[in-house]
Amino acid sequence: MITIGIIGSGQLAQMITHVAYTLSIKTLCYSQNKNCPASIFSPIFVGDFFDLHAIKSFVKKVDIVTIENENIPKFFLLNISKYIKIFPNKKSIFISQNRLLEKQLFKKLNILTTKFIKIYNFLDLQKSIDTFPLPAMLKTQYFGYDGKGQYFISHKNQIFNAWKSLQKKPCILENIIPFSEETSIIAARNSLGNIQFYPLIKNKHISGILYISTLDSNTEHPLQKKAEKIIKNLMEYLDYIGIMVLEFFVFKNELIANEIAPRVHNSGHITLNACNINQFEQHLRSILDMPLLKPLVLYDSAMINILGKNINIKAKNIFPEIHVYKYRKEEFSRRKLGHINITASSTEKREKIINQILKKFPPIL
Amino acid sequence: MITIGIIGSGQLAQMITHVAYTLSIKTLCYSQNKNCPASIFSPIFVGDFFDLHAIKSFVKKVDIVTIENENIPKFFLLNISKYIKIFPNKKSIFISQNRLLEKQLFKKLNILTTKFIKIYNFLDLQKSIDTFPLPAMLKTQYFGYDGKGQYFISHKNQIFNAWKSLQKKPCILENIIPFSEETSIIAARNSLGNIQFYPLIKNKHISGILYISTLDSNTEHPLQKKAEKIIKNLMEYLDYIGIMVLEFFVFKNELIANEIAPRVHNSGHITLNACNINQFEQHLRSILDMPLLKPLVLYDSAMINILGKNINIKAKNIFPEIHVYKYRKEEFSRRKLGHINITASSTEKREKIINQILKKFPPIL
Repeated sequence: MITIGIIGSGQLAQMITHVAYTLSIKTLCYSQNKNCPASIFSPIFVGDFFDLHAIKSFVKKVDIVTIENENIPKFFLLNISKYIKIFPNKKSIFISQNRLLEKQLFKKLNILTTKFIKIYNFLDLQKSIDTFPLPAMLKTQYFGYDGKGQYFISHKNQIFNAWKSLQKKPCILENIIPFSEETSIIAARNSLGNIQFYPLIKNKHISGILYISTLDSNTEHPLQKKAEKIIKNLMEYLDYIGIMVLEFFVFKNELIANEIAPRVHNSGHITLNACNINQFEQHLRSILDMPLLKPLVLYDSAMINILGKNINIKAKNIFPEIHVYKYRKEEFSRRKLGHINITASSTEKREKIINQILKKFPPIL
Repeated sequence: MITIGIIGSGQLAQMITHVAYTLSIKTLCYSQNKNCPASIFSPIFVGDFFDLHAIKSFVKKVDIVTIENENIPKFFLLNISKYIKIFPNKKSIFISQNRLLEKQLFKKLNILTTKFIKIYNFLDLQKSIDTFPLPAMLKTQYFGYDGKGQYFISHKNQIFNAWKSLQKKPCILENIIPFSEETSIIAARNSLGNIQFYPLIKNKHISGILYISTLDSNTEHPLQKKAEKIIKNLMEYLDYIGIMVLEFFVFKNELIANEIAPRVHNSGHITLNACNINQFEQHLRSILDMPLLKPLVLYDSAMINILGKNINIKAKNIFPEIHVYKYRKEEFSRRKLGHINITASSTEKREKIINQILKKFPPIL
């Protein structure tokens, strides 16, 4: 039996290790913490990201390596990829760790993205702010996710606070566009160059954290083909293997690329119940050179993140169209503790169920 | 979070505990052996079936109890059901443990079944054999599964060997009918009396062990409605809660009831990939009073048991339409080690894939 090493051990690793069983695959997760979400399904290899001895010992126990999170130290990635194949490749991971590199790649490949300027010191920021359209977002180049590492600037007198708040780290200053919609495309590519795309998922965020995703069963998004072309372009340029997720803003009927996730993605949790194949299985298939399946959408579906406080729906009060996933993490404001998948027979029914859930279980932020 | 106690820890428990995650349910398996198939996903409670202290301690750790196997000692069932709710109820389990009680129930409810005679000693057998149509099968009343506890009698001079071979245990002598097909229906019933049926699954056995099951996506079996009526009748009579599976012979276009499984069933493994809802989730929903889902069949599908020897299909040689499940059990002739699910877009494609697999991986019996 093949053993896949997973770098990381949060809920994404939990779901990858859960689904691995359906392909007769074993897993081993590299983690700094034995009591992590992935430990309910998988053995955990406890190691520090800067411990070369641990890295060498880990690679002996697994056949290939993948990641659940792109925020992995460069030291770790450079070293582990000397000894074993890692999917996606380290170049793709490095680029997606850094907003500036991501944006520069979009430009290079003629992919529309928001206007940006690189900021390395306060002087850069002072010089830029006079000509840059406001409101804008100052974002750290590294370690940005779930709304972290961002400062909203509506007036130039805020720049000192912004710079201080982001701890004077390398940043980009980015134009805020009044988008009409946020959407993500999930695609998988294997070593033969075969690619399969999921239909565009619509996403709604709440204070920078993904909150609700929806997927329709019968209608193709008017921008589907364009999105496929863009992510295919990216994957081929990077010689990418695995699941990639690309987030877009929709602005004036155009797709504006926002960021790359070089891994399974929160918006893709909807595929666990809405589709014939979920993103976790498709990811494992792509990195193992197994044939990919063509994703089909079976329901008018939605995914709602459980944020900050766990919910408790009594079995008797549950409706047939929902599945609740709990990651068994401790409650903490803004923390993703689980998600609810809704699989309805029409978009009207879906909206009704979403509203019932939102009323009963407001997010704790 | 609710914790379900599962009596047993083999591959059926393994799959129940795996699927429990998708409903945010915890599990604890009662087992005599810590290193059991279910242990890869679930904590195990090690206890003997005749240890009252262990039983009392187990029920304190779980909210309700279900079974993965009907062959549980009476002592255990009588005692555990004093302290906690067990699904299905003990009456249903007792009946399905015993071929005679099963047959008598079929007769009582006017469900067609094969002719049978009860045999308690060699004299019973001697007296019956002259008038009983041959060939016939002598079967132990208790502990019959996967072709165990059976002796095929084609001539009356075999009866002494038959009786000795089955260790002089209480038996039934049963008529063998030249059936045209074997089929099973899976149904789930919850405490509100709601029932959902799966479409009839066609089964092929090899030396008494289930080998191949198939399910068609578009055509309803001509006996579907009759099968539903029969299992509904049984479930309502027994006030049954949970998944029940009823096996039939098809003979002269009639359904002839063979046996009841008061649990998830090997033929239902096909539902893991062929349907919108698998039997394990439907079972958990029914015993937790969650609403049941209407099963839909998405593919022309098949399930092939991996018997006796594990298979090793290289990822590159795998076709997109298969999923391989391995239970991580040691190889042993006739043992169920895993199964292969095939999900094809037509019955012709399915048959082609089945043939490819059978040629490459013959069962070891």
